[in-house]
Amino acid sequence: MIATQIEPMTALAQLQESKPDRVTIVLLSGDLDKAMAAFIIATGAAAMGMRVTMFFTFWGLNTIRRRGARSSAKDWLRRMFGLLNRGGADTLPLSRFHFGMQTVMKQNRMPGVPELMQTALELDVRFIACTTTMGLMGITKDTLIDGIDQFAGVTTYLAEAKQGSVNLFI
Amino acid sequence: MIATQIEPMTALAQLQESKPDRVTIVLLSGDLDKAMAAFIIATGAAAMGMRVTMFFTFWGLNTIRRRGARSSAKDWLRRMFGLLNRGGADTLPLSRFHFGMQTVMKQNRMPGVPELMQTALELDVRFIACTTTMGLMGITKDTLIDGIDQFAGVTTYLAEAKQGSVNLFI
Amino acid sequence: MIATQIEPMTALAQLQESKPDRVTIVLLSGDLDKAMAAFIIATGAAAMGMRVTMFFTFWGLNTIRRRGARSSAKDWLRRMFGLLNRGGADTLPLSRFHFGMQTVMKQNRMPGVPELMQTALELDVRFIACTTTMGLMGITKDTLIDGIDQFAGVTTYLAEAKQGSVNLFI
Repeated sequence: MIATQIEPMTALAQLQESKPDRVTIVLLSGDLDKAMAAFIIATGAAAMGMRVTMFFTFWGLNTIRRRGARSSAKDWLRRMFGLLNRGGADTLPLSRFHFGMQTVMKQNRMPGVPELMQTALELDVRFIACTTTMGLMGITKDTLIDGIDQFAGVTTYLAEAKQGSVNLFI
Repeated sequence: MIATQIEPMTALAQLQESKPDRVTIVLLSGDLDKAMAAFIIATGAAAMGMRVTMFFTFWGLNTIRRRGARSSAKDWLRRMFGLLNRGGADTLPLSRFHFGMQTVMKQNRMPGVPELMQTALELDVRFIACTTTMGLMGITKDTLIDGIDQFAGVTTYLAEAKQGSVNLFI
Repeated sequence: MIATQIEPMTALAQLQESKPDRVTIVLLSGDLDKAMAAFIIATGAAAMGMRVTMFFTFWGLNTIRRRGARSSAKDWLRRMFGLLNRGGADTLPLSRFHFGMQTVMKQNRMPGVPELMQTALELDVRFIACTTTMGLMGITKDTLIDGIDQFAGVTTYLAEAKQGSVNLFI
């Protein structure tokens, strides 16, 4: 009888284990405040032992571009788009006022996006760059930072997200 | 004894079946890039066999308006609002630069929002139009595309979302 | 034998009970339409018996500022930022046209953000103000409305969200 009573508990434990606390964040926005929020949540969750995957798409790809890296796209239109849409985590605009916030952050010694991103990488947050929109944005692999885990599309994102307990679109 | 050992597994299977992989997407934004992201995720999930529900509200309702359809709202203010806020999936603005992206998409034969939306409908993605905000936006049923499954409010959305494994707000 | 067959069901019921229907909403945006959507979902979910937690961060903090309250930040930069970035749920801008919507809402007797927020508080929606960004935005506790349940950071949010069935970032 003890065996049969333990059985369902073991099965339940396995079920719960098969759904560990996973966090996925799609970062579409290139705004400084939204990128900050995304990385604060990502690093916070990773520090709490959760498995975190960030999926960078559209303007969010700017966050993971190397500073000053130029588009190496072959055709002039994509190259021009890449030039206009400059990258690097330290050049993101704010969704509203840019005024003041950056200065306040420095005065209060708050980590900015580049520092948060570094922490995320150190805490093994997985970075996935969206291949579908990279082409669209004139962004090539050689212009992205080191530490990108995967170049993939929506299927890879969904396979992770459906196991996730917290899935955010930012 | 075999029966009792099978029992919990069956119950677990039932539990897992009662929580199938469902995706819900609230599309509030009327920006081209965000609508594209929403439909790429929706069609991707549906192609993977997930049950997908899209809930269109506020500017997201523009995505599912028939091209060139005019508001048939009775009062002048709503009608005017409907005119200013023109609909149709092929007239969505971009959250940042409009320049280039549409051309790059065509050059690379990427599907646009109208094509993605058509695929979504073919893959049985459920479309729900938010009745609360339709009134607010001066949008009437007769100006929306065919294939809307339901005209409903927040309760219908939440009933689906609480069964969902991936719930996004875009 | 009956006992062993009931056992897994009880265990399953406990598992389901340990994951009640919880909703978390991060409100980063200060746009009227997005704040409305957030509060419509929050009040709808609370009315359906779900446990709802709203986490106000960045511009979303403006929603829960007392009308006309001035920043009491000591340093001039934060104070200036607080002045520029005026608070109060009735002064939120719209993410697109401001024109018309407010008037249409009044004509149709739709509740605005202040009314929805009041209903949310009455339905025991929990309000958490993000301490990390309060400092950044030059917002102090004494300038926020009454009824804030907690002043906390990302860890508190994640602890709730990982129990949630619907977690939205707005």
